[in-house]
Amino acid sequence: MRLPRPLVPRTVLSAHCDLPCGVYDPAQARIEAESVKAIAEKYQANEDPEFRTRALIIKEQRAELVKHHLWVLWTDYFKPPHFEKYPQLHGLFNEATKLAGASGAKGQSDPGVAEQLLVKIDEIAKIFWETKQG
Amino acid sequence: MRLPRPLVPRTVLSAHCDLPCGVYDPAQARIEAESVKAIAEKYQANEDPEFRTRALIIKEQRAELVKHHLWVLWTDYFKPPHFEKYPQLHGLFNEATKLAGASGAKGQSDPGVAEQLLVKIDEIAKIFWETKQG
Amino acid sequence: MRLPRPLVPRTVLSAHCDLPCGVYDPAQARIEAESVKAIAEKYQANEDPEFRTRALIIKEQRAELVKHHLWVLWTDYFKPPHFEKYPQLHGLFNEATKLAGASGAKGQSDPGVAEQLLVKIDEIAKIFWETKQG
Amino acid sequence: MRLPRPLVPRTVLSAHCDLPCGVYDPAQARIEAESVKAIAEKYQANEDPEFRTRALIIKEQRAELVKHHLWVLWTDYFKPPHFEKYPQLHGLFNEATKLAGASGAKGQSDPGVAEQLLVKIDEIAKIFWETKQG
Amino acid sequence: MRLPRPLVPRTVLSAHCDLPCGVYDPAQARIEAESVKAIAEKYQANEDPEFRTRALIIKEQRAELVKHHLWVLWTDYFKPPHFEKYPQLHGLFNEATKLAGASGAKGQSDPGVAEQLLVKIDEIAKIFWETKQG
Amino acid sequence: MRLPRPLVPRTVLSAHCDLPCGVYDPAQARIEAESVKAIAEKYQANEDPEFRTRALIIKEQRAELVKHHLWVLWTDYFKPPHFEKYPQLHGLFNEATKLAGASGAKGQSDPGVAEQLLVKIDEIAKIFWETKQG
Repeated sequence: MRLPRPLVPRTVLSAHCDLPCGVYDPAQARIEAESVKAIAEKYQANEDPEFRTRALIIKEQRAELVKHHLWVLWTDYFKPPHFEKYPQLHGLFNEATKLAGASGAKGQSDPGVAEQLLVKIDEIAKIFWETKQG
Repeated sequence: MRLPRPLVPRTVLSAHCDLPCGVYDPAQARIEAESVKAIAEKYQANEDPEFRTRALIIKEQRAELVKHHLWVLWTDYFKPPHFEKYPQLHGLFNEATKLAGASGAKGQSDPGVAEQLLVKIDEIAKIFWETKQG
Repeated sequence: MRLPRPLVPRTVLSAHCDLPCGVYDPAQARIEAESVKAIAEKYQANEDPEFRTRALIIKEQRAELVKHHLWVLWTDYFKPPHFEKYPQLHGLFNEATKLAGASGAKGQSDPGVAEQLLVKIDEIAKIFWETKQG
Repeated sequence: MRLPRPLVPRTVLSAHCDLPCGVYDPAQARIEAESVKAIAEKYQANEDPEFRTRALIIKEQRAELVKHHLWVLWTDYFKPPHFEKYPQLHGLFNEATKLAGASGAKGQSDPGVAEQLLVKIDEIAKIFWETKQG
Repeated sequence: MRLPRPLVPRTVLSAHCDLPCGVYDPAQARIEAESVKAIAEKYQANEDPEFRTRALIIKEQRAELVKHHLWVLWTDYFKPPHFEKYPQLHGLFNEATKLAGASGAKGQSDPGVAEQLLVKIDEIAKIFWETKQG
Repeated sequence: MRLPRPLVPRTVLSAHCDLPCGVYDPAQARIEAESVKAIAEKYQANEDPEFRTRALIIKEQRAELVKHHLWVLWTDYFKPPHFEKYPQLHGLFNEATKLAGASGAKGQSDPGVAEQLLVKIDEIAKIFWETKQG
C-alpha cells in the first residue's frame, strides 16, 4: 500500500548533508520533479520562442537537482542492509536518475515523462519511509 | 488553528523556479533548517576539532540554503495583496533570514538559535498555506 | 563631468559576506543589472536564434545575481532601525527583486524593464548611502 | 573629500558576461578583495576558534571570487592591442591572481597580504580606465 | 616506464554532459580523488590549525566532486546491458561514493581511506574501458 | 595503437585545489573541450530547436569549465621561472581562454573553433609536461 506523503509526521521532514546531519527526505527530489513536470506542461502550452527557451534553461536546472537529491539518498542514506532487503533499490535509483537526465525529463519536454519520474520517486519514497519505520 | 503539515495534500507540494513553474513549498527551507539544527546538536556533542570544523563548513552551506529558499518565497511567491493582508510578512521574512545568517544560525552553533529559526519558518509556512487555501 | 573610477575613494567600495566582513555596496547589484540591460538591448538588435538563445541563458544568470545581491543587502546590511526610518524599504526591495525575476527582467527582454530595475536599485542605493553617512 | 557613490556617473559601472554584454568593472574584484582584507583583520582580532574557522571558510570563497573577476577581465575585456601597449599586463594579472590564491590571501590571514592584493588590483584598474578613455 | 600524457591518444579522453555529448572519462573522478589523498597527506604532516582548517574546507569540495563525477558515470554512461554483464557495478559505485563521503574521505583525513577510494575508482575504470572496447 | 587508460601511470594524473594539493593536469581542460567539440558537432547535425537550445545551454557550461581549468593552471601551477623559460605562455593561455569564450566556442557552434581550442590546449599541455619532467 502506498502511504500518502501527508500522513508522514512532520518531524521526519529531513534533508541531506554530509556531516552527516542524519536528516533526509525524498520530498526534496519530489518537489523538484513536480517543478520539472509543471515546466513541461507550460512549455507545451506556450509557443513563444523566448518562453520556451527559458523553460528549457530552467528545466535543465531543476532536473539536475532531482538527480542530485536522488544520488544523495542512494549514497548517503541507504546502507548495505537496505540494499539486501530491497534488491530492486539500485535499479530503481538508476532508472529514476536516468528519467531525470538526457534520456528522460531533460531530453524531452513531455509531461508524461516527468510523471514517470514522479512515479519512480514515489516508489523510492515508499521504501525510504519503510526503512525509517523499520 | 495551525494545520500540521501532514494534512496538507501532496499536490500542493511545491518548489521554486523562475519560469515560474508555480510550484513553491516552505518545506524546502524547513528541511535545510532541520539540518542546521541537527548539525548544531552534533557540534555541541563532539569536541573533536576535525569534526567541528566539518560541522561549521556544512552548517554555513545549509544555512545559506535556508536563506535562499526563504528569499525565493518572499520575492517570487508572495504578491502585493498578500503583503497587504499580512503586514507582518516582510518583517517575518527579514527576521527569519537574519536568523539563518551571521547574527543567527551561521554565527552561532546553538541548537536553540536553530530552533528559533524553525519557529519563524513555521509562522511563514502557516501564512503560506492560508494563502494557498484562500 | 565624468569622474574616472580610480578617483572614487576606496572606502565607499563594499561587499558582502556572512562573517560578516561589514563590506557592502549596492554597486554589486547595479553592475549585474547594467549587464541585464545591455543583454536585453543586444537581444533586441540581433535576430540570430543562436545569439538570442545565448542572450537568454546569460540574462537568467545575471538577473539571478541581481536578486542575490539585493537579498543580501536587505537581510544582512539593513537593521530594524533602518526599516523604522525608511518604512518603504521592505517594499522597495521586494519590488526590485521582482523586477529582476520572472515578472521582470528574466521574463522579458525589454530594455525598458531593465531600466526600471536600475531605477529601483538607485532608490535603494540612495537610502543605503544615507544610512552610511547617518 | 569623499564622493558619495550615487554621484558617480552610472556609465562607469560595468560587469562581465560572456555574451558579451560589454559591461566590465574592476570594482567587482576590488569589492571582494576589500572583503578578504576585512576578514583577515577580524581573524587577527578574534581568537575564538569557531569564529576563526568561519572566517577561513568565507575568506576562501571571497578570494576565489577575486580570482574569478580578475580572470574574466584578463580573458574577456583585454584584447591583443592592450597587451601590446601594456606589456606588463599579463604579469600584473598573474601576480594579482596568485596574491588571491594559496600563496597569498587564501593561504595567509595577514591583512598586509590582502593590502598587496588591493594595490595590485588598483594597478590593473588604472590601466583598465586608461583603455576605456583611449 | 612512465608514459608522458601527451602520448596518450586523445580519443580516450572523455567527459560528461547531459546533452549527452557522449564524452565520459573516469579520469575526472580519479583526478579529484588524487587531490583528496594529497590533501589528507598534507593534513597529517602539518599541525598548523589554519592550514588544517583550509585542508578540510578544500577536501570537502574535492570529495564532493569525486562523488559527482562517479554519479554521472553511473547514471549517464552505464546502461542496462552493462549492469547485466557486471552485476557488481551498482555495488561498486555505491561503495566508491560512500568512500568519498561522510563515512570515508570526507569524514576522515586518513590517506589510507583516500587510497581505498582510488582503488575502487580503478575497479570502475577497468570495467569502463572494457565496455568501451566491447 | 591505442593505449587503454588504465595503463597510463597514475602519477601523471593531476588536478587542482588551492591548498595547494599539488595535483594538476591539463586533461581537465581538455576533457571539457572535447565535450564542447562533440556538442558543436551534434548541434550542426540536428535541427530540432529544442535539442539545439539544450546544446547551447550545455555548451556554455562546458566552455566555462574549460576556461576555469585553464585559468587555474595559469595562476596556480605555473611559476615565474616557467614564464621566463616559455615567454609565449601568457599569450597561449590568453588565446586559449578567449577561444573558449564569447569570441570562440561559446559564441560559435562551429566544431572547427572547438578544434582550434583543443590544439591550443595541447600546446599548453606539451609545455606543462616538459616542466614536470624538467
